[in-house]
Amino acid sequence: MRYEVIGVAGIGEVRPGDDVAALVIAAAARQSTPLQRGDLAVISQKIVSKAEGRLLRLADVTPSSVALAMAAGLGRDPRLVEVILRESRRVVRMDRGVLVTETHHGWVCANAGVDQSNVDADTVALLPEDPDGSARALRERFSVAAGGDVAVIVADTFGRPWREGLTNIAIGVAGFAPLKSYLGERDPAGRPLQATILALADELASAAEPVMGKLDRVPAAIVRGLPLPPDDGSGSKALLRDPARDLFR
Amino acid sequence: MRYEVIGVAGIGEVRPGDDVAALVIAAAARQSTPLQRGDLAVISQKIVSKAEGRLLRLADVTPSSVALAMAAGLGRDPRLVEVILRESRRVVRMDRGVLVTETHHGWVCANAGVDQSNVDADTVALLPEDPDGSARALRERFSVAAGGDVAVIVADTFGRPWREGLTNIAIGVAGFAPLKSYLGERDPAGRPLQATILALADELASAAEPVMGKLDRVPAAIVRGLPLPPDDGSGSKALLRDPARDLFR
Repeated sequence: MRYEVIGVAGIGEVRPGDDVAALVIAAAARQSTPLQRGDLAVISQKIVSKAEGRLLRLADVTPSSVALAMAAGLGRDPRLVEVILRESRRVVRMDRGVLVTETHHGWVCANAGVDQSNVDADTVALLPEDPDGSARALRERFSVAAGGDVAVIVADTFGRPWREGLTNIAIGVAGFAPLKSYLGERDPAGRPLQATILALADELASAAEPVMGKLDRVPAAIVRGLPLPPDDGSGSKALLRDPARDLFR
Repeated sequence: MRYEVIGVAGIGEVRPGDDVAALVIAAAARQSTPLQRGDLAVISQKIVSKAEGRLLRLADVTPSSVALAMAAGLGRDPRLVEVILRESRRVVRMDRGVLVTETHHGWVCANAGVDQSNVDADTVALLPEDPDGSARALRERFSVAAGGDVAVIVADTFGRPWREGLTNIAIGVAGFAPLKSYLGERDPAGRPLQATILALADELASAAEPVMGKLDRVPAAIVRGLPLPPDDGSGSKALLRDPARDLFR
């Protein structure tokens, strides 16, 4: 089995109201790798957020007294802390300048995914309100352009405990099941395979990252030639660990 | 930019003393995708461990009183708990049947990476003693076969907090720098890029997993066509987060 990962360059700066689907379709065609049936398109959260207008000017943010107090302890901008808290439903860790929260979607990440890079100065980008919905909308448009099913991941780079470096992961999924399960299957010795549910959507978001340069402005990639597990309608929600089974909350 | 991920099938069952490098080189050539200069070979930890004889029969393990007590609390086989503790230098979490430890290498993972699947019944496989050393040895052999530099990842599937599903990650690295850094660089608005160190080696281990079927016995993959950051000699150690900067120990 083999597959290919293709960066989609030339998309340019994305602004609120822009049509991300049209931009990606056109850029892929211009570089002679038009979207095809069976492709998986991995799209950077940042351009989805920008197109959806999920931007805030810090000058327009008035920090609450809670945000002011927390920001003092963290050594961070109180307006930014205010935005992070608004985007969160729970604080997971707050220490050493780092604020790890659980977003309203359920993702646990630094700063609730609020990001200051690759946007105008004094502006921050928030995560899309409904990344699965964003992925589904892109999937429909891509599938029409390709004349057949195209799957979509909306991806962002998250840190993780214990290991250095961010990895690109899936926060929105459409058109395939994000988990690949070997449960109930047996290894050649006849023993049931243990703990063998793979986070395929996260692995493929990671596969796309090396061709999606942050500096080179390549906010999309095509994963081509890989059979994907059939859509089970779960979207990215299947990637959220049940808090009852999580030892690190 | 584009690159390809190619599964290497037909390696067959690996036994202690087998020459993994020769097996991978031959299997890649048989399927008409011989290793080439510039390739990255991702090799499953399981076949490295087997070839290096890192196998234990549980029947030969006598659990200590500590292991007996912990196993009772966890509802696990005391002999297996004994092996996990021997492979660990610290217990990170022990709850709800799950034992998360820090291995002697510094990796934090479930069961110290001790695995019962895809080995003979009553046998467990341990992580390689020195996965970076294993990667370096494979790299030398692969590079001779390819007539030029080949990089190597020794990969295993680890779980992570907060998100469902395992992902394939790098526990051994040779021939390239496992982290890709944008620190000190600026986005188009002139703002320094924040927190932009990517765990490239983990992302590429993940990229390889979809073609490395657990059931189909494809314990190796080739990542072809991707320029890699020059080797800085760090090996996988660069992927270990400094405990002083880790909020989840």
